Amino acid sequence: MPDDLKRVLGPARRLSRLLGVVCALGLLCTGAGADEGMWTFDHFPSATVGSRYGFAPEAAWLDRIRNSAIRLTSGCSASIVSKDGLVLTNHHCVVRCAHALSSPQHDLVAEGFTAAGRSEEKLCPGMQAEIVSSISDVTDEVQAAIKAAGDMDIIKARNAAMVSVEDRSCHGEAQTRCQVVSLYKGGQYKIYKYRKYSDVRLVFAPEFSVSFFGGDPDNFNFPRYCLDSAFVRLYENGQPASTPTHLAWRRSAPAPGELVFVAGNPGSTSRLDTVAQLVQVRDWRLPIRQLLLSELRGRLIEFSQRGAEQNRIAADTLFLVENAFKALYGRERALLDPELFGQKADQERELRAKVAADPKLAAATADPWADIAQATALYQQMFLPHRFLEVGAGSGSELYRYARALVRAGAERGKPSAERLPEYSDSKLALLQKEVFDARPIYPDLERIELQTWLSKTREYLTVGNALVQHLLGSQSPEELTDRLVQGTRLADPKVRKVLWEGGQAAIDASDDVLIRFVAAHDADARAVRLRVEQQVEGPVTRAEERIARARFAIYGDSVYPDATFTLRLSYGRVDGWTYEGGTVAPFTNFAGLYDRATGAEPYRLPQRWLDAKAKLDLSTPLDVSTTNDIIGGNSGSPLIDAQGRVVGAIFDGNIHSLGGDFGYDGRTNRSIAVLTPAISAALHHVYGLPALADELEAEAQ
Amino acid sequence: MPDDLKRVLGPARRLSRLLGVVCALGLLCTGAGADEGMWTFDHFPSATVGSRYGFAPEAAWLDRIRNSAIRLTSGCSASIVSKDGLVLTNHHCVVRCAHALSSPQHDLVAEGFTAAGRSEEKLCPGMQAEIVSSISDVTDEVQAAIKAAGDMDIIKARNAAMVSVEDRSCHGEAQTRCQVVSLYKGGQYKIYKYRKYSDVRLVFAPEFSVSFFGGDPDNFNFPRYCLDSAFVRLYENGQPASTPTHLAWRRSAPAPGELVFVAGNPGSTSRLDTVAQLVQVRDWRLPIRQLLLSELRGRLIEFSQRGAEQNRIAADTLFLVENAFKALYGRERALLDPELFGQKADQERELRAKVAADPKLAAATADPWADIAQATALYQQMFLPHRFLEVGAGSGSELYRYARALVRAGAERGKPSAERLPEYSDSKLALLQKEVFDARPIYPDLERIELQTWLSKTREYLTVGNALVQHLLGSQSPEELTDRLVQGTRLADPKVRKVLWEGGQAAIDASDDVLIRFVAAHDADARAVRLRVEQQVEGPVTRAEERIARARFAIYGDSVYPDATFTLRLSYGRVDGWTYEGGTVAPFTNFAGLYDRATGAEPYRLPQRWLDAKAKLDLSTPLDVSTTNDIIGGNSGSPLIDAQGRVVGAIFDGNIHSLGGDFGYDGRTNRSIAVLTPAISAALHHVYGLPALADELEAEAQ
Repeated sequence: MPDDLKRVLGPARRLSRLLGVVCALGLLCTGAGADEGMWTFDHFPSATVGSRYGFAPEAAWLDRIRNSAIRLTSGCSASIVSKDGLVLTNHHCVVRCAHALSSPQHDLVAEGFTAAGRSEEKLCPGMQAEIVSSISDVTDEVQAAIKAAGDMDIIKARNAAMVSVEDRSCHGEAQTRCQVVSLYKGGQYKIYKYRKYSDVRLVFAPEFSVSFFGGDPDNFNFPRYCLDSAFVRLYENGQPASTPTHLAWRRSAPAPGELVFVAGNPGSTSRLDTVAQLVQVRDWRLPIRQLLLSELRGRLIEFSQRGAEQNRIAADTLFLVENAFKALYGRERALLDPELFGQKADQERELRAKVAADPKLAAATADPWADIAQATALYQQMFLPHRFLEVGAGSGSELYRYARALVRAGAERGKPSAERLPEYSDSKLALLQKEVFDARPIYPDLERIELQTWLSKTREYLTVGNALVQHLLGSQSPEELTDRLVQGTRLADPKVRKVLWEGGQAAIDASDDVLIRFVAAHDADARAVRLRVEQQVEGPVTRAEERIARARFAIYGDSVYPDATFTLRLSYGRVDGWTYEGGTVAPFTNFAGLYDRATGAEPYRLPQRWLDAKAKLDLSTPLDVSTTNDIIGGNSGSPLIDAQGRVVGAIFDGNIHSLGGDFGYDGRTNRSIAVLTPAISAALHHVYGLPALADELEAEAQ
Repeated sequence: MPDDLKRVLGPARRLSRLLGVVCALGLLCTGAGADEGMWTFDHFPSATVGSRYGFAPEAAWLDRIRNSAIRLTSGCSASIVSKDGLVLTNHHCVVRCAHALSSPQHDLVAEGFTAAGRSEEKLCPGMQAEIVSSISDVTDEVQAAIKAAGDMDIIKARNAAMVSVEDRSCHGEAQTRCQVVSLYKGGQYKIYKYRKYSDVRLVFAPEFSVSFFGGDPDNFNFPRYCLDSAFVRLYENGQPASTPTHLAWRRSAPAPGELVFVAGNPGSTSRLDTVAQLVQVRDWRLPIRQLLLSELRGRLIEFSQRGAEQNRIAADTLFLVENAFKALYGRERALLDPELFGQKADQERELRAKVAADPKLAAATADPWADIAQATALYQQMFLPHRFLEVGAGSGSELYRYARALVRAGAERGKPSAERLPEYSDSKLALLQKEVFDARPIYPDLERIELQTWLSKTREYLTVGNALVQHLLGSQSPEELTDRLVQGTRLADPKVRKVLWEGGQAAIDASDDVLIRFVAAHDADARAVRLRVEQQVEGPVTRAEERIARARFAIYGDSVYPDATFTLRLSYGRVDGWTYEGGTVAPFTNFAGLYDRATGAEPYRLPQRWLDAKAKLDLSTPLDVSTTNDIIGGNSGSPLIDAQGRVVGAIFDGNIHSLGGDFGYDGRTNRSIAVLTPAISAALHHVYGLPALADELEAEAQ
């Protein structure tokens, strides 16, 4: 999943001057063959790739890839693969869409979805696709605002500066979205302009049992046998979008060792975090999040077993929870690995020593590591309320999310854009409104499970005597309150949400909806906790990180890549397996392996049409591949691209060794996993009988 | 709960020579007032108590307490409180009994149980009560066996020596149980002889909602308002046992600051563990156990919400899981506290420095810390299979436990006692047979939840390609296999179990019971993992720990207490609250506070008869108390005793600060929590209308 798939990589630099950089940034300095890095398109190391692989991408090549690369606001990546707006992504990137379009009679997750023609393609609720159209530097403006701010107003000033740039840059452009991104932890700020498509329709999704063949047990493992692919289409004015710039479809699999690129939107990494920050993640954030996920998982599993309909209702949520759990488990294990943690500490020591060795730099830098450690210690006292009341409030409840969006949008829209909570600034409202307005089914049992879990865990971790908890629950139990909210609210109806949205603060004030009133009643508490964290933690950390970034630029130059930020990046690598503890894993699987592994017991049960189609398929067709590309959650759905710029697959996972990719990249074992175009084509032809879709893909295929 | 309630304490020694000892063993050396220590009766620091509190217990006093103190094999402590075998313990120590005696029509956990007369007292399945009758030292014999053993046979030789002593010591004594205990991590071995009572009957249990008032949110917190008390009675030959030696019942509460003792069986502590061992606990054992508990908890909560009967069925299991989770959470947080962990490291460094400073001692000691670190690193590779296939096999499934006991008893009883797995040696068989034979209800849904959880987590953590997993599951899913086992087995019937037990190996071999066959099929795998751990980890650790113990005795003398071993200990302390972060907590609560806290919402809903009885109760009656005694899980039910040897309460919990008690004791904040005798008496008189029971208690009351 977006935030949770985990993998990473780095450049095998020949220049000895830069080896120190790679080692300072990378996880393990193996010296040879580390294809590390999630590079921005305006700073791609073409020369390095050329010297290493014999092909150095030029500007025109990079532009074409960039213009074909899609960001899905649901947290995934994708690519345009036909002139009529057809988009390739992963099945798991459309699973929420397929789930939302399902009913007790038609389970599109289990049964798959095939649009017989374009008129049957179905709107994915809440989904928006975005293509980068320009990137400009706005570092000076944002950093100046931070510098001028009072100590308690750093985040407020930074957000206001970012929002001003965004609102100004997209003013009057209805089809454009503008977003300022902090790169290198405040070392740079850039404004990304996107062409946006708000009408995205589902074209094709295979059955979950073949797209996620092997289920949770095989997740993050390899050899793997998943057709984790799907197609959506971009629409404009009710018609398929015209997309003359797109990737050509390659009919054949890449060769072992072949150079391949991944263009996509890695969500988030922590490779530049200080040791104090990593300790906080290791000892608090990860363990507590995993405990919460585990209990939620148990509730969902038991609920699923009540019957077929309950199983259908919970399927995509359970998938997301299990995927997140497994990714976080790998992340925690990486931080608990003394070797990895020791290297992170060594890297920090090295950077600090270099700073100390340069008196002028040392004076300008001061001790941001100590500042961060102090702020992190302070955060410890706010972590639980911040987690439960603000960032994780409502857990996964859709109804709660609607209610909070409505309550806060009502309050915020009455202020000037730059003074709002930044997620309600003018440039953000269009997408938020779409998410609130789009119809999707609400399942009271899932809402019950999510809200009960959130309320009972909030009480547990903050303790029953805590004033915030007493304000939240009053004298009610989490179970009583949940029942009252889920049964009483009318927010499941998109018409009700639309009226409340359009009525603004007055409508919210006048609403007697029980969930609106509940959210409104504790919103001040949640905002207060957030403000305290922003003022006392995030503010000092922002200033400290900027000083570390400057020091890093001064010492290592700017030929390094920033941490992932769910913005467009390009990684390079090669088709390759790996060797671990004496065992070697080959980089390809094929259809024969899929059928061999299909025991008939869950999660190794193939759909009937796959069993029926076996004789028609060439069983030697390559299915999945492992490559050395450096990726992470958010890259799901990214095109795997060859040197000719053709799409040859879609990234859908990383191997188990990539799970520490949040913190660094080990070129020896970290691998990304993709589903290959020949397998997708064969499935469309021989399993799903979709020649028109296959023809559209293969029109320009080579 | 037995294994999981967590608290600890230590002696405020005046002798400066010993201050180092206390600091080396204690958690935080506050210097003043640390009532630390879980002392053995044959080494109780009477002089210290005398100098500190003005009362030094003499041998006769200690003997009377020892002879009145009960160990319940279910994992709790208790005390005899009348001449007719009446025993006071906690409600949570009989909750499994009350649950086993319940039906859909009569929920003895929710409704409570009051025997109208002795003829209505009901056998608690599987429960045995034990009173220490003698303790003898057998260190030389066991240590000699360890010394003589080959490197791969250390555990085998140690177990054989222990079993030989046990079998010999109890030979021909049907009412006696003998058990060799390793104290000071192999520094001493002692044989404990117990008078055992295998017929223990439930006399009185209040409603769960008042015994565990405040539920999980209030658990391990204080102020607290629980009547966590219950009575059982020892029977001999079908008649109440004659128990002339017992504790007198004190009518009044102890005074603030008053000296109090706790006699009970603390289950296990890790205060003498090396840093390498603590790291393993912190980074592996605790986090993984908590994740498993969290998922199981989620399953049980969701199952409970299906209906009233499901809620009844899951209630005691859910309580045990939540209690364990909260205790482990506190334990993990303690180890993640840099201050506490730093102190443990300092203590180890100090001990090692003292050893190194004495050339002769250094030569004899060598480097056991390195040996343990090496063994612990090796254990890392075996930890998951050992956890899932051997020590945690079957999770909490009752049926699985029966099946394994039958399969292994069948195989082991064919060998000489000293060559068996030690839990099947002659001295252990009587209790095991009782547990297998006693009837108790089996709930297929609970079995399904436990077995599914175990099998699916085994597959998850060992991974699907693991040979052990493939052997366990074959091509079945955990869900399919579970259904087949739960639906197919006949082991829920005690008659079936009796036939299989009595038929021995031949009956097991001939059985076509699906669960017997399943357990028999993977028993060799489980034994192999166990043997590997014993040979490569436990053996070297046993020898290393013995050397550390010798070094410790050489440096600190033997005036220290051993880690807890679920054997009888005496702790001393005083009635006291505590101060933390500026807030002071008073040591007493009363009935008025109970009624004030009863909002009517779960878990603050009092039984109707408590609401009805309010006017009859003196609301100023003391209910619960906090004291400085050093206790830990297993101490639940222990009598709180005054200097006159009268029982004044029953320990049922520790405060939240005591949860790190596994690793040390902080006299500033660690507190044990007890329910007081005046509250119990008042409840029997005015709420439950049980004058005969109250009279029996108060016959000799003072």
